[in-house]
Amino acid sequence: VPIITLTTDFGVTDAYVGTMKGVILSVAPKAVLVDICHQVPAHDVHAASFLLHQAVPFFPPDTVHLAVVDPGVGSERRAVAVRTQLGTFVAPDNGLLSLALSLAGVEEAVSLTNTDYWLPGASATFHGRDVFAPVAAHLANGIPLSSLGSRVNDLVILPLPEPEFRSPDLTVAHVQYVDGFGNLILDITADQLPSKPVFEVAGLQVRGMHPTYAYGAPGQLIAYVGSTRRYVEIAMPCGHAAEVTGARVGTPVLIRCKVT
Amino acid sequence: VPIITLTTDFGVTDAYVGTMKGVILSVAPKAVLVDICHQVPAHDVHAASFLLHQAVPFFPPDTVHLAVVDPGVGSERRAVAVRTQLGTFVAPDNGLLSLALSLAGVEEAVSLTNTDYWLPGASATFHGRDVFAPVAAHLANGIPLSSLGSRVNDLVILPLPEPEFRSPDLTVAHVQYVDGFGNLILDITADQLPSKPVFEVAGLQVRGMHPTYAYGAPGQLIAYVGSTRRYVEIAMPCGHAAEVTGARVGTPVLIRCKVT
Amino acid sequence: VPIITLTTDFGVTDAYVGTMKGVILSVAPKAVLVDICHQVPAHDVHAASFLLHQAVPFFPPDTVHLAVVDPGVGSERRAVAVRTQLGTFVAPDNGLLSLALSLAGVEEAVSLTNTDYWLPGASATFHGRDVFAPVAAHLANGIPLSSLGSRVNDLVILPLPEPEFRSPDLTVAHVQYVDGFGNLILDITADQLPSKPVFEVAGLQVRGMHPTYAYGAPGQLIAYVGSTRRYVEIAMPCGHAAEVTGARVGTPVLIRCKVT
Repeated sequence: VPIITLTTDFGVTDAYVGTMKGVILSVAPKAVLVDICHQVPAHDVHAASFLLHQAVPFFPPDTVHLAVVDPGVGSERRAVAVRTQLGTFVAPDNGLLSLALSLAGVEEAVSLTNTDYWLPGASATFHGRDVFAPVAAHLANGIPLSSLGSRVNDLVILPLPEPEFRSPDLTVAHVQYVDGFGNLILDITADQLPSKPVFEVAGLQVRGMHPTYAYGAPGQLIAYVGSTRRYVEIAMPCGHAAEVTGARVGTPVLIRCKVT
Repeated sequence: VPIITLTTDFGVTDAYVGTMKGVILSVAPKAVLVDICHQVPAHDVHAASFLLHQAVPFFPPDTVHLAVVDPGVGSERRAVAVRTQLGTFVAPDNGLLSLALSLAGVEEAVSLTNTDYWLPGASATFHGRDVFAPVAAHLANGIPLSSLGSRVNDLVILPLPEPEFRSPDLTVAHVQYVDGFGNLILDITADQLPSKPVFEVAGLQVRGMHPTYAYGAPGQLIAYVGSTRRYVEIAMPCGHAAEVTGARVGTPVLIRCKVT
Repeated sequence: VPIITLTTDFGVTDAYVGTMKGVILSVAPKAVLVDICHQVPAHDVHAASFLLHQAVPFFPPDTVHLAVVDPGVGSERRAVAVRTQLGTFVAPDNGLLSLALSLAGVEEAVSLTNTDYWLPGASATFHGRDVFAPVAAHLANGIPLSSLGSRVNDLVILPLPEPEFRSPDLTVAHVQYVDGFGNLILDITADQLPSKPVFEVAGLQVRGMHPTYAYGAPGQLIAYVGSTRRYVEIAMPCGHAAEVTGARVGTPVLIRCKVT
């Protein structure tokens, strides 16, 4: 039985997500539905891209990942389905898949032009329900990607956030995501760090690298390789690093070599 | 395997919804549970009624819809089960089903008086867990409605919100629901509009009708037929119409014929 | 098909919970997942303990309850699995299970030391995903507890909140949990009350005991036996007792015998 995950900015105070699930289960009654997140900040394509790429590697590769953060709904932006070794994605073609596709190359991508697999009488305002949900369900049922529309080779890929290597002594990374604990997830990976890094964010010193939170004293900012197993994070054990530093997405983090 | 949906004002910070699911799955282990919404504003029967009627048409007709917004729990208000062509409902008899039953007529309705289908030792404070959850599970298992209690013909139906047709030149609609994006869902349907409508809400002009968000310039209020496929909505593309206008449930929206 | 419940302080704005579910379903594809609560206040072990003990009795006894509120992740604190007649628990050994274990004695408890049942390459920051989720899934698959690690007999049990019986005329109970409706759940049970109790919280009189909300006038504080079927609660019908009284966890509630 295939899994279908859902990632949207539809929130949890309306019936929109539940309605999409009704559509999916009408088409694929045996699909197992898993919510990744429905509180992506409204229209924040990068945040959705980040959350999706965090979760995807931990699902079976036959999973269908449905993701809808879609400020351009009803415009000419394409809707796409993309198969990779990590899973199959259904999403608007607005860069939402950029980070996930940095983990796994595209095997096949199609534009969702075959309305046979849409809900009859699709609205222009709720493609999550009328286009993406039924297409994801048909994919879970085993419909081949090629039935859904014509192949595309020019998916919209947003540039990934990257640190600036300014000098041998100074690297400038950036906060790319702030999680619900207030932890700052940077755009630099462990192997991009200098050998004995010291971090500074908003004028505050950060001790690093630590193996985990438990090695930091409460009230002290620490750096460590986060649970993405990829990006460096900054946290305050028993505290909220984002509140303490005022950092948010895009805030620069200065990284220098420790002078001993 | 039948679906059971859940709509409540129990929130997501307590264990109440999870507890109801434990009861349901103890009775109907194979039921597929789908959350519609648990953040209905506390005791807001109309909001629950609206959300339910948005979602219900997109579920298979053998679905059991469990809805509990129940300010009168423990009082003499009835608990009911209602079968329609769109699905079977289990809810307090306080008008919560009004909008859903405007989409599909009642085939059979019963008062939930047979305590054999309640949880043993039902509390007086949590009928969601002790009455509605087990009854919904038994319905999903195929128990006939008539086993649950005696037939009723006088369900509480609240008057649906309606526009006022004041003159050939002026219709006054009202906001009946504000969604999480700040979109204003009115109580007027597209076929009730004058031929070239112009809208005014809180002194602000609204351009309409548009096919979808993408036709509005950012920062401009637009009107369109919303995803209910029924009611007219007002939104601000890339913005939050409710914040910009200050509109909330009940706010009047003036609709005039465009003078050309 | 066994149920796995999830209780965490991971929130619903990130992908953490969804990621755990990906891990669980990769190991136990047929497990039925039920969220108890993911908005436990960050690091609040007692709140998690309370919510878990509310829900657990309403699930089948073969359910696996996964609970992660884990301020000590990455430290030397143990991770444990505990089998009881009410269900099997997987959690950090920090007292989170205290209230649930007050309902059902420990049949067997082990420390999760066998890394064969962890995710390969477990991180030091996200044991929810890398340790607790796969272990819960293996338990749902029928792996015996004894395979997961060595037996322990010294689980961390926090003292349960208790009322103070100060004199024949005065008992001091405390708020142990405030729910989303603002209802105050005390640490006193109905059988611990004097025969005609009158309650006082924050200088305000509370009428009691009532069978349910519906017996109180709006705006009046009332006491009743709550849906735990165990603890006395204080609520304001159609109101928010916590806001009106300013009470929060730990606030004392004076209980005297009614003078007639």
